[in-house]
Amino acid sequence: MTYEVCIATMASHTALQILKAAKKAGFRTTAIATPRVESFYRRFSFIDKLIPTQPDEIDKLAPQLVEENTVFVPHGSFVEYCGPRKAESFEVPFFGTRGLIAVEAFQESKMQLLREAGIPTPEEYESAETAKPPVIVKFGGAKGGRGYFIASDRKTLLERLANAPKNVIIQQYLVGVPAYIHYFASPLENRVELFGADIRYESNIDGRVLGFAEPSFTVVGNRPLVLRESLLPLLTEYGEAFANAVERKLGQRMIGPFCLEAIIDEEMKVRVFEFSGRIVAGTNVYMGVGSPYSVLYFDRPMDMGERIALEIKKAVERNALEMVTT
Amino acid sequence: MTYEVCIATMASHTALQILKAAKKAGFRTTAIATPRVESFYRRFSFIDKLIPTQPDEIDKLAPQLVEENTVFVPHGSFVEYCGPRKAESFEVPFFGTRGLIAVEAFQESKMQLLREAGIPTPEEYESAETAKPPVIVKFGGAKGGRGYFIASDRKTLLERLANAPKNVIIQQYLVGVPAYIHYFASPLENRVELFGADIRYESNIDGRVLGFAEPSFTVVGNRPLVLRESLLPLLTEYGEAFANAVERKLGQRMIGPFCLEAIIDEEMKVRVFEFSGRIVAGTNVYMGVGSPYSVLYFDRPMDMGERIALEIKKAVERNALEMVTT
Amino acid sequence: MTYEVCIATMASHTALQILKAAKKAGFRTTAIATPRVESFYRRFSFIDKLIPTQPDEIDKLAPQLVEENTVFVPHGSFVEYCGPRKAESFEVPFFGTRGLIAVEAFQESKMQLLREAGIPTPEEYESAETAKPPVIVKFGGAKGGRGYFIASDRKTLLERLANAPKNVIIQQYLVGVPAYIHYFASPLENRVELFGADIRYESNIDGRVLGFAEPSFTVVGNRPLVLRESLLPLLTEYGEAFANAVERKLGQRMIGPFCLEAIIDEEMKVRVFEFSGRIVAGTNVYMGVGSPYSVLYFDRPMDMGERIALEIKKAVERNALEMVTT
Repeated sequence: MTYEVCIATMASHTALQILKAAKKAGFRTTAIATPRVESFYRRFSFIDKLIPTQPDEIDKLAPQLVEENTVFVPHGSFVEYCGPRKAESFEVPFFGTRGLIAVEAFQESKMQLLREAGIPTPEEYESAETAKPPVIVKFGGAKGGRGYFIASDRKTLLERLANAPKNVIIQQYLVGVPAYIHYFASPLENRVELFGADIRYESNIDGRVLGFAEPSFTVVGNRPLVLRESLLPLLTEYGEAFANAVERKLGQRMIGPFCLEAIIDEEMKVRVFEFSGRIVAGTNVYMGVGSPYSVLYFDRPMDMGERIALEIKKAVERNALEMVTT
Repeated sequence: MTYEVCIATMASHTALQILKAAKKAGFRTTAIATPRVESFYRRFSFIDKLIPTQPDEIDKLAPQLVEENTVFVPHGSFVEYCGPRKAESFEVPFFGTRGLIAVEAFQESKMQLLREAGIPTPEEYESAETAKPPVIVKFGGAKGGRGYFIASDRKTLLERLANAPKNVIIQQYLVGVPAYIHYFASPLENRVELFGADIRYESNIDGRVLGFAEPSFTVVGNRPLVLRESLLPLLTEYGEAFANAVERKLGQRMIGPFCLEAIIDEEMKVRVFEFSGRIVAGTNVYMGVGSPYSVLYFDRPMDMGERIALEIKKAVERNALEMVTT
Repeated sequence: MTYEVCIATMASHTALQILKAAKKAGFRTTAIATPRVESFYRRFSFIDKLIPTQPDEIDKLAPQLVEENTVFVPHGSFVEYCGPRKAESFEVPFFGTRGLIAVEAFQESKMQLLREAGIPTPEEYESAETAKPPVIVKFGGAKGGRGYFIASDRKTLLERLANAPKNVIIQQYLVGVPAYIHYFASPLENRVELFGADIRYESNIDGRVLGFAEPSFTVVGNRPLVLRESLLPLLTEYGEAFANAVERKLGQRMIGPFCLEAIIDEEMKVRVFEFSGRIVAGTNVYMGVGSPYSVLYFDRPMDMGERIALEIKKAVERNALEMVTT
């Protein structure tokens, strides 16, 4: 069965997962690609149409996409390439909560949303002077962790901040293990599904540095993870609390994938230091094979791309696309 | 096809994996849940019945469960919550080797069983005075590694033992990589299957501690692993040797899942420092998707929950439930 | 459907994956096993025939295998056990590029091939005197990393080389994260497929050494990995460049699985420090379940064994076995 609706995304990040699943579910598929990667994406037969473009000209594609009855799935690279303003105003129906892009553009509003959800977060410091090291210093946007640095004492912090951009966030450095928790908010099922988890693979912190370099945090990949079952009730509560806080704050329902990025310490305390209001690259670890948690809700394992396609498919069948798009 | 038999377990640890698979195989399913997690487990349609209870009152449920023709799958959290005595005397047929609970309750009998099986183990020291550091100091029970500590020299060992409970185990600290090897002992197939492997994800040792804290070993999750194929013959022998030793010692057959917890050193030498006589949480990494090794025995990948359900199903069909329960 | 062709390999490394998939695809299967592992491999019903042999007598089996219409799948352990000369001259049709065995036998020709493909590699130093530490020192052959060492300064390098074999390679020690990229070169589809990735699990560098030993690099297992989608175009180019370089250099097409072994640094720069001209053990992480990238080319996830079986099956059906064998 094929659907009149076309599912599109930008050719990067999780595009392969999204479009493969969309095609399998019976949709037409479109990838919007920069010239540099065009030839790569042309290899894959599950991509029906490839539109080459420059990220700063993507808004010009909106009329065409709308005419082709497109649902656009935004992801982190789309937001990063276009910039949050252009991304948010891209006039094609989004599968997702459009208003979150603006929230995520500023570290302040982002952390504020987590706090409003009642989710524990690391302490934040307004300046190097008030910071209690160790701290981690971050830069705005979704740049995949590049350039982040850790300062173990105030002197180092001051020195490194001198060479850093102005718009930095100084956070308490949480000691524990990182876990990226994938959720799917389903307006049609009226629930938040705990869908999977991953650990990032970061250069050079996850390599064999052996003291030859300072730790750095460039995300180059992702690895699968399951969490202790005794953590899942709490993590589910946090996912639901997040979705509720989004709806309260934005007046828009939480739609589709999101991710809470947590440190779990030796007392099993979970603190969320960041979130993504849409699909994260870590869901790629389950591409085509499916995530362990997906079978809690469905009769077969599913990846996040398949989950998205399923929600859109059901929405189309119920003539309720407006419930899952913004 | 549905079966008259009901599969039950306590709602934690690997309950989702076990009950999902049981339902899929055609069984009725029951989860025994503490009030704190009740609402979480109520979300899942594959759990037919949820019985709220306090762990210390679980024994009162036995008559009801027996009447409902229940096979109970014990796991580590069940033993931990109820305590080994109450767990062992829970009067519902167990899928598993009941007698192992008592063996595992004492570190001495536990390590003794491994040695009787001829499986290499780390050296153990009777006191801080005779210990040869580095050593790892452990506490009784299945607390998920919390509180374990490592001492690199005698002075540290003595200092930390001063503040520790009396019932500690001082083991040689093995240098190498950990591997948790999952087995399934099938009375019906009369074989021990090497089923999978995982690596624990422990806070804070697996995180980005960067010298800001002492290493600690609280298990917060698990990650998939495959081992070199050249290790599998030896690991299979160890699994079989373990099952044989159990039968010799207890006069009960080894039934169902168990786990050997090993350190593999740079010479590929495998030493087992602990075991679990039942399903381990690490099998969750393959939930719904199946483990790589499961296809060695079956035509499709299977998780440990599915393997359990399959064995019980075959036992029911052959009218031989007594072969797989104690 | 069954095929007249038999698929054989040596019983180690990835034999279980290869033979399981071959059987599933309808082929007869043969394992050539050393006496030590014979009883292990006899457990598996997907192995039709097991031929016990000593590695140094494997050449005597050639006539029998040829008579039984065998396609032999060579892997690293086969080459290691027999030695490169005996391996290359084994007179049974290989699924793979026979000429690569000789190239891989010498570190010089191996790195040369990568450079001819235009793939970035670490610097190599001809002697301890010209080396710029930190360096990693390697030994010839496919010994799984055992004995490799790292020297952080010239003094250490000189000291450790004094006790090392003559035939060593001194490479720039790259700071970053390792990634083993699996490819499949399909003569029938006329393409190179990016098939998967893994991270090795090495004792004791990936364990909890805590300063109690020098780092060492004995491979004991493998773990799954996905890479950032933005890296995939480049990695695909490298895979194709490698296959092209093989064809130019050897006049033989690249056939079947190969692996580029890379370090990815914090600038996302990829450098390949080694390759394998055939299936790597890391593909076992996807055994029976399938790799995330395999669904980019096929409608269902597939492991590398299944991919091999599929290519041979198609070749048989098209009466074109000579296209995929050497």
